[in-house]
Amino acid sequence: MQSTFRLKDLAIMEQRYRAHFVNSLSGFKSANLIGTVDAQGNENLSIVSSCVHLGADPALIGFVSRPNTVERHTIENIKATGEYTLNHVHAGMINAAHQSSARYARHTSEFTETGLTPLYGEGIAPFVAQSKIRLYMSLRECLTIELNSTEFIIGEIQQVTLPSSIIAEDGKLLIENAQSVAVSGLDEYHTTQTTGRLAYAKPNQGIP
Amino acid sequence: MQSTFRLKDLAIMEQRYRAHFVNSLSGFKSANLIGTVDAQGNENLSIVSSCVHLGADPALIGFVSRPNTVERHTIENIKATGEYTLNHVHAGMINAAHQSSARYARHTSEFTETGLTPLYGEGIAPFVAQSKIRLYMSLRECLTIELNSTEFIIGEIQQVTLPSSIIAEDGKLLIENAQSVAVSGLDEYHTTQTTGRLAYAKPNQGIP
Repeated sequence: MQSTFRLKDLAIMEQRYRAHFVNSLSGFKSANLIGTVDAQGNENLSIVSSCVHLGADPALIGFVSRPNTVERHTIENIKATGEYTLNHVHAGMINAAHQSSARYARHTSEFTETGLTPLYGEGIAPFVAQSKIRLYMSLRECLTIELNSTEFIIGEIQQVTLPSSIIAEDGKLLIENAQSVAVSGLDEYHTTQTTGRLAYAKPNQGIP
Repeated sequence: MQSTFRLKDLAIMEQRYRAHFVNSLSGFKSANLIGTVDAQGNENLSIVSSCVHLGADPALIGFVSRPNTVERHTIENIKATGEYTLNHVHAGMINAAHQSSARYARHTSEFTETGLTPLYGEGIAPFVAQSKIRLYMSLRECLTIELNSTEFIIGEIQQVTLPSSIIAEDGKLLIENAQSVAVSGLDEYHTTQTTGRLAYAKPNQGIP
């Protein structure tokens, strides 16, 4: 049986019910941990499910930051230092990654609280040692979305570390083989099972 | 074995290799078909993997549109009419959905070419009858990302149709039970296996 909801039905939903409902509607989401430090070097770690590919050249990824959420320390740090890391969440680290979404005090390190390990490379922002796919990012732009006072934070990929074995011959990364997970809504995590890669689509191939 | 790639390594990648490589780095993506009509009522259908949740109240979803890609007719139609549909791709319709990414001529309907069925409700834009989760959207804002001349298209959810059985008691939608799929990179589709929902994270719960 199907249900249809219109604006007036959404309007009367209890706030938390509506958050769960609407958060699931865009489809599956990525799961990344953002590692930052503030100007004094205090570490922060935050899970985000809104990372989205913006372009390959330059290599840009955006994510959405809500006002007054747990990511606020992350955003302040990114604006202060211009640098951050993105670290894929894999199936073996879901509980620790989710715990980073708790509202810790400003100078509490989510690394310490979650048992995840900071890993420093050439830059000032810490990676998550447990992650298999790790990106170092430079802030490029913050766009304000006036409609709901969110920010769309755009960064350029500076460095990528990943298992050599997941790189296909044509450059595709088999992220499922690195056990990267998908998220739906606010709190459900999913492993994946590939249905395979499809050929570049061309017109006049007949109905699939 | 791990591999590390820096800016100079990305810079020398062949264009198509780099597209595959970078497109996989943000993590898993949503899979939605966008249904539109132009001012004369000609239908268009396009798959997008960049839909991202922006907020629950108002209920906003954004997606990214590259210049001169197959989505250009979609964007022109959205700007002309202000309305579009988002339709989750499920496991039984992956091939047809992917085929909609071919570069068809302007007045060719991707519905006809892919075998997917237009379904009209109260609005002018067609849903995809085969989809189990269908949203009717009103255009709210187009943000230009100057860094790479992409557009971030923001719409507000006007109507939602979905199987009643996937609505959890607290409003969470069990989209896996509707066989919604995830995408990685440009051409790989994935079904999912839930690892379960996690409780709202609070500080001082101990290391997970």
